[in-house]
Order: sequence, then structure tokens, then C-alpha cells
Amino acid sequence: MRYFITGAAGFIGSNLADQLLADGHEVVGYDNLSSGQEKFMEPARASAKFTFVRGDILDVPALTAAMKGADFVFHLAANADVRFGTEHPSRDLEQNTIGTFRVLDAARVNGIKKFAFSSTGSVYGEPNVFPTPENAPFPVQTSLYAAAKCAGEGLISAFCEGFGMQAWIFRFVSILGERYSHGHVIDFYKRLRADPSSLHILGDGKQRKSYLYVEDCVAAILVATTRSEAKVNIFNLGTDEYVEVNDSVGYITDMLGISPKRTYSGGERGWVGDSPFILLDCSRVRALGWKPKLTIREGIVNTLRYLQDNPWLLDART
Amino acid sequence: MRYFITGAAGFIGSNLADQLLADGHEVVGYDNLSSGQEKFMEPARASAKFTFVRGDILDVPALTAAMKGADFVFHLAANADVRFGTEHPSRDLEQNTIGTFRVLDAARVNGIKKFAFSSTGSVYGEPNVFPTPENAPFPVQTSLYAAAKCAGEGLISAFCEGFGMQAWIFRFVSILGERYSHGHVIDFYKRLRADPSSLHILGDGKQRKSYLYVEDCVAAILVATTRSEAKVNIFNLGTDEYVEVNDSVGYITDMLGISPKRTYSGGERGWVGDSPFILLDCSRVRALGWKPKLTIREGIVNTLRYLQDNPWLLDART
Repeated sequence: MRYFITGAAGFIGSNLADQLLADGHEVVGYDNLSSGQEKFMEPARASAKFTFVRGDILDVPALTAAMKGADFVFHLAANADVRFGTEHPSRDLEQNTIGTFRVLDAARVNGIKKFAFSSTGSVYGEPNVFPTPENAPFPVQTSLYAAAKCAGEGLISAFCEGFGMQAWIFRFVSILGERYSHGHVIDFYKRLRADPSSLHILGDGKQRKSYLYVEDCVAAILVATTRSEAKVNIFNLGTDEYVEVNDSVGYITDMLGISPKRTYSGGERGWVGDSPFILLDCSRVRALGWKPKLTIREGIVNTLRYLQDNPWLLDART
Repeated sequence: MRYFITGAAGFIGSNLADQLLADGHEVVGYDNLSSGQEKFMEPARASAKFTFVRGDILDVPALTAAMKGADFVFHLAANADVRFGTEHPSRDLEQNTIGTFRVLDAARVNGIKKFAFSSTGSVYGEPNVFPTPENAPFPVQTSLYAAAKCAGEGLISAFCEGFGMQAWIFRFVSILGERYSHGHVIDFYKRLRADPSSLHILGDGKQRKSYLYVEDCVAAILVATTRSEAKVNIFNLGTDEYVEVNDSVGYITDMLGISPKRTYSGGERGWVGDSPFILLDCSRVRALGWKPKLTIREGIVNTLRYLQDNPWLLDART
């Protein structure tokens, strides 16, 4: 199979590329390197089956040309800044909705029938049902990031109906692991390196969150795309556990051997659109034979170790 | 109150403008006249409290300037061609998603906190629950039209959360009545005028559909926007009944006094993304004291009479 991956220089995209190459497939990686890292693609670039094309998903001619000949599109390129949506209201629309449309339409034009998409568990807004299943009540969006991802999901489903395509949509919890560059572990680690004596935490620290390790995430993606064959296949991807933000802080400070004074911005939410409780019902993907190997604590510890081993990432533009 | 209505020269927009003016409000109508009709605004234009601005919702400077000073935005401008989405895949995205974003952002920039939106019952895709309530299971989109409207809903909800706005989102069934210019009644009537001896029907004619009369629709919109005060207020708008397409054809041919031979394209759906059964649970808006005055049959009969009285509309670009 020849796979086309948008966001191939990103966290999940580069890990997915490595796995597909290890499985013997051809991979064309596409990335504008706005937040992706050349270094993340070094293992892939060592393979003769990997081609990298630097380009933007909004550049339709370049995108359409690069995708030519692919059998399967993994659309992972996105604006991943969940927290700062309200500072630039149109960015999520442009990168996560219009961008998704461009990738989808390029697939249609190229006659590519299989399409996978990295959505987010945030599309459930603030759900009433925990763990939250894929068919939870029709949610009300609470962040521009999730609204734009949800819009992408809808466009993909409509393309499947309208143009005979087949899609796999993944609603991720936050992902941890090698090449992680966005989120609370790197934020806390950066700030604790600068000042190990204190740590300011957004919200009340009691927000309950789920995380999934990137190797487990990639394994789930490959299980789902090879073992489910509906027209539109929607999967939650997460673990069956959650931790409080305060727990995460404890794992990190224990590992660093420090005891910073914790202060809190207060409130149930860390930022506008933050969901105070994320726990997804992942029985649908588990029924296909997948289960995660790492616990959340192991994931956080491994992620911090990775960041300690790769200090260049702390200063990189991501 | 000073209301700003996009799509003010359209079917629902012009009826809403008339009612708001009758209630003593000021109305600024905004429309690019691509499918709206100057004639529809004649009653409104007789009022000193009505201002019309010809402009496109994608023209941000014109839109933002026209909206200045309004207290409340009714965003009704849209591509209303539900059936032909797959013939021009980007049109729904541009007009119904990006267009909605532009109107929403112009409201934000102008400091307007109240925003109402014409969504569609089609956002439920092909639901499993009938009558379908607003909190039905998270749907899978089946048409570009509904996907783009659903995307608009999500953006609006996220703006409410992010920027302290308040929204009313209406999921309409098909609307009938004065100034109706799109849908099965006009399609059948045009074809029966050309050839009263036969009528070709898309699908098997057994599609079950709900319809609401435009006066009832406008009344429901005004009840909902004045009597519900949540951050995001989502309402189904329809009747508690449905008819088969074959029933509709019978009402029309009875009224015309003809008995055309009926042929069928076959299949449960009239077109890609057509939902074989639409029946919305409207108890949420009924609980506010609203109920429809006309039955579906009365609505169809009145609509046909309106078309007979306004033959210019049969040839108008709508």
C-alpha cells in the first residue's frame, strides 16, 4: 500500500510513518514544517520507501500533485494549539476545517477512496456520560479547536456518502510519548526547569484527563483501519483510566526530585473550552483486539524522559 | 431592538423581517440577491424602520460595516440547494460554513452578543430515534449541506463559550408558505404545468417528511429567542406529523384537478444524502408555549396557491 500522510513531520504523523514503513509500506509524507520537525522524520528518511514533500494543505495544486498515486490518506496535519483558539478565531477554521476539506477534495480528485482523520475527544464538549461513547448525545461545542475538528468529521462523512469514499475518524484523548511537543508535560517541564520552586497550574488542578501513549495510539489506528470496514468508522482512542492534573504534576515532580509550591488560577477549567473531565469509552476499538500497553503514569514518565533526552525540543518552534 | 438579518431577501428572512417590523423593531436586511428576491422585500421597504444593504456575507468589510449598531443578528443567508451538493463540493463549505464564520466574527467585532442561526434537521443524518430530539445520538453527516450547517452550529457554540455570546440555533424541517421558492412543491408544480400527464418522482415516493409553515416557523423563532435564555439554545422546529412524498403529490394533483401517471427513480432516497424519514421532536419549543397553526396538508395547499398567484417566481433565479 502507498500511504499519504499530512502532518508527517508531526508527533503522531512521524510515528505513524515509522510504523507503516516498518510494516513494508510506501509512505509519502507531506508537511509545511510550521510545527513539525525535520528531526522527527530522520528514521523515515533512512527508508527508500519514504518520500517527503514540503507543502501546505491549503496549497491545492501542490497537495493534489503530491497525493497522486496514493491508496490511502492519513490526514493528521492540524493546528494543535487547543488552548489559544480565542486569540486567533479564524486559525482553527482555516487549518482544521478548510484544511481538512482541501485534503479530502484532493483525495476525491485523485480517486483515493480511503481516508483517515485525527479528530479529538474534545468534540464531545462537556459530555454528561462517562466514559463517553462514540454515540453520546449530540454535543454542544465549547472550543474553536473542537468545533473545527467536528466540522472536519462532518465533511468527511458527507464525502463518504456523496463520493463513495470510506473513512476512519479517530477521537483522541491527549497523546503522550516520543516526539511529543505540545501539552501539559512539556509546559510544566519547561517552567520547572526555569523555576523548580513553584508551579502555577491553570484551573483548580482537579481537572480529570485521559492520555494515551503514542505507540498505543498508532497501534490502535492500524488495527482500526485494517479491521473495520464500514463506510464511516468512528473510534474513540484512549485508556480506561484518567488522572487529575494534580496527579500528573506529582508524577513529574517526583521524577524530577523536586517539590515546587503549587499555585492555581482557580476554576474547574484551565482555559476557555477546557473540558473538566475527559474519559472516553473505547470498547469499540478494544472489540477489534486492541488494548493499550502503557498506563497513564508510565506514559507521562516516558514522555518526560524523552524531553530530558531531547532538550533541543524545548526551544524548537512547535 | 435593532435586528440584522442576513438572507433578508430570502424566503424565511423576508417573512421574519416583516414580523419584526410589525412588532415595532428596526431591521437591517443584508442579502447578495443571488437567490433572494427584491419583490420579497417590498412590504419591508414600505417601512421607515427597514434598511436594505446589498452585500455578500463573504465580503467582511461590507458585512462588518452593515452590521454596526445592531443588537441581534439573525443569520439566515445560505446555499439552500440541498440536493446538488456533490455537483459543487466546495459551495456548502464556502456559503454555509465559512459564511457563517464570517457573520459570527463580524458580530464579535461589532460587540453584538445575540446570534440566531437557521440550521437544519438534516444535521441528524439518518437518525435511529423518531421523533428525533435535539440530544439524539451524535450523528454521522450524510450530505455536504447538513455537514456545512452542522459545522456552522459548532462554530457558533464555540463563539458563545469563547466570547460571551448567546445563540439560538434552529434545526428546521422543510419550510412551506408565502415566498417559498425551493423544494418539492415548486419542483412538482413546474413539471406538472409543463406536462400534467406524468410525474417522475425521485426515490420510491415513500420517503416520510415533515414540513412547517413559514408563519409558524417565524412565530417559533420569536418565541424561542424571547423566552429562552441559555448560552446556547438549540431548537428543533417542525410539526408533530409527517407525510409521504406520495401524499404530497396527491395533495398537489388533487388541487390541480389532474391525475398524472407517476413514475419513480426508485430506492429509499431521492438523492445522495436524502434522509428517508424526517420527524423532529419539537417538545422543547412547544414547552415555551408555541404550537403550529397549520397542518402539513394546509401548508402544501397554501404554498401551491401562493405559487399559482405568483407565476413570476417559477421563472425567477432562486
